[in-house]
Amino acid sequence: MWVDPFPDFNPVKPLFICILANTETAKIPNISAAGKSPELTDYTPAADAELVETGNAISLKEPAMCPSGAPTPAILTRAAVLLTGIPCIYVDAGLNVKPKVPFVDLNGSPGGDIRTGKAVVDAAGIYESARMFGKSIGKLSDCVIIGESVPGGTTTALGVMRALGYDGRVSSSFPDNPVGIKDAVVNEGMNNAGISFGSLENDPMRAVQCLGDPMMPAAAGLVDGLGVKTVLAGGTQMVSVLSIIKALGLKRDVSIATTRYVADDPTANFREMTDKLGFRAYAADPGFGTSRVKGLKMYEKGDVKEGVGAGGAMFAAAMMGISQKEFREKVEEVYESTFLNKNA
Amino acid sequence: MWVDPFPDFNPVKPLFICILANTETAKIPNISAAGKSPELTDYTPAADAELVETGNAISLKEPAMCPSGAPTPAILTRAAVLLTGIPCIYVDAGLNVKPKVPFVDLNGSPGGDIRTGKAVVDAAGIYESARMFGKSIGKLSDCVIIGESVPGGTTTALGVMRALGYDGRVSSSFPDNPVGIKDAVVNEGMNNAGISFGSLENDPMRAVQCLGDPMMPAAAGLVDGLGVKTVLAGGTQMVSVLSIIKALGLKRDVSIATTRYVADDPTANFREMTDKLGFRAYAADPGFGTSRVKGLKMYEKGDVKEGVGAGGAMFAAAMMGISQKEFREKVEEVYESTFLNKNA
Repeated sequence: MWVDPFPDFNPVKPLFICILANTETAKIPNISAAGKSPELTDYTPAADAELVETGNAISLKEPAMCPSGAPTPAILTRAAVLLTGIPCIYVDAGLNVKPKVPFVDLNGSPGGDIRTGKAVVDAAGIYESARMFGKSIGKLSDCVIIGESVPGGTTTALGVMRALGYDGRVSSSFPDNPVGIKDAVVNEGMNNAGISFGSLENDPMRAVQCLGDPMMPAAAGLVDGLGVKTVLAGGTQMVSVLSIIKALGLKRDVSIATTRYVADDPTANFREMTDKLGFRAYAADPGFGTSRVKGLKMYEKGDVKEGVGAGGAMFAAAMMGISQKEFREKVEEVYESTFLNKNA
Repeated sequence: MWVDPFPDFNPVKPLFICILANTETAKIPNISAAGKSPELTDYTPAADAELVETGNAISLKEPAMCPSGAPTPAILTRAAVLLTGIPCIYVDAGLNVKPKVPFVDLNGSPGGDIRTGKAVVDAAGIYESARMFGKSIGKLSDCVIIGESVPGGTTTALGVMRALGYDGRVSSSFPDNPVGIKDAVVNEGMNNAGISFGSLENDPMRAVQCLGDPMMPAAAGLVDGLGVKTVLAGGTQMVSVLSIIKALGLKRDVSIATTRYVADDPTANFREMTDKLGFRAYAADPGFGTSRVKGLKMYEKGDVKEGVGAGGAMFAAAMMGISQKEFREKVEEVYESTFLNKNA
């Protein structure tokens, strides 16, 4: 079983939603590997959406990758979309750079640098807008998998979990998790917002306003509005969304699916957190150890790990009967047609 | 039967899509009644979407109406949405004013004044973007009803039909159809674009570029991508989309539904055109003659007539088993809660 536990349900109209957002937090040096340089992270969500939808990261000269050269997890998501035929809808929760494929606009703005303590001014508006869209689209689908592309998003996740009173240790797109920088950034933001560990445990929207990013209220609002089986596709960023959902007291059929790279990351505490919060968690293993592609093998050493809903995309593939081998081979095919064509 | 012929199919997951666009053509004096003044027509599509979704035209101080005081047809669409529970997705094909509810962005730009002969620069891009979105959403729905809110759209419809070689006489949101002005505008545009009656019969995208509006390639692209039963909800504007679809040689399950106010408008030739083009046409009668609301009675005298997919919304209501009386009473209820609250 390459996805554990095995997703033993069989939806008729599954849907993949990918939430896109930027935060100035991503531009703090050495905080995010989701882009070749901090400034380029503005383009990463748009390019990820373009890559999943078309196979071509239109907004970038070359597809997003880590500074190390490991490819964006968008290629995992595209592989799953191609294999399963599940439709994908992209949601702009607050972007500096808009994707050149159709997307849903929630009227959100990009997030601020959380060191200021002012992260997402209109968290409530984004939540309400997402809830409204979720209510509509939930009438068409019986299983929605929600991923995200938010460079810098593990740092905002750390901030929100701390404000809600959780010792949520977050993962990283770097092999060496820059834990010290993230801690310092979150502490500065908490000081400037005048909040302390757990002081916002009953006010999750305020926690997002001070320390979060626009993806969080979008994801929570979608879950609220959808009212159908929902799987949050992501690592510690989606754990922070679960902590918001719990603090809001929302009763919904929600679980979480990530890659084994996040689930087994010793610098994070994914499984501990999902147990504590009380949500079912799935971990997917793409088996990249045997891949012929060097950039994919780098995932095994801790590069990238997760993003663009890759874990949930594998969950969906397994649910639709795709094997690990079929999946890995499709990822290799997508990698080659995407990256090698660009260099040709 | 208040919808004729009766819509004798029963979809499991129906969906309503409303395409929104602006065109500078609407600002030509006396050409459009879709707004209290020509400049205010920029706000009409956004306000219509807001009204259908929330019951409140957020972007306007008061809900859109004709200069005469007849209310926007968005209240008919809202009534149908409330009665049937059909979800509605709003698509921005090219807007000056964005709605304050979630919407799908096709990366389109507002249309130009067709007198210049340069109407929709990126018609092909909008078409492709809509086709892409249609392909995704078509996997979730088995019957899609596509309406529009485009002030000035009957004039662009006239232009495109002439360029394609059809003597399509278009209807109007005014009781007295300003046929002379529309003719003059279209003739000026054709001269400036260097085209004549029928000269673009084999190049419908070029006809849209020169004389159309952004809604047209969006609607045609959606029909192309959806690949499921589709009903174009509108009058002569949607007839122009049918003429584009036919010229493109698209083979899809498409029909058209409008109000009897358009279908029976003697200044237009709706039925003649749908017969000639070879598409099934439905006409819906809301029975406003017996309404207690003065603004609705004005529809019987030729005000407004159609828009925001009102004809298709009635088609959907009838399809879901709603009676004419239930529908009319719900429209009155929506009218009162929308317009009277605003004045309170």
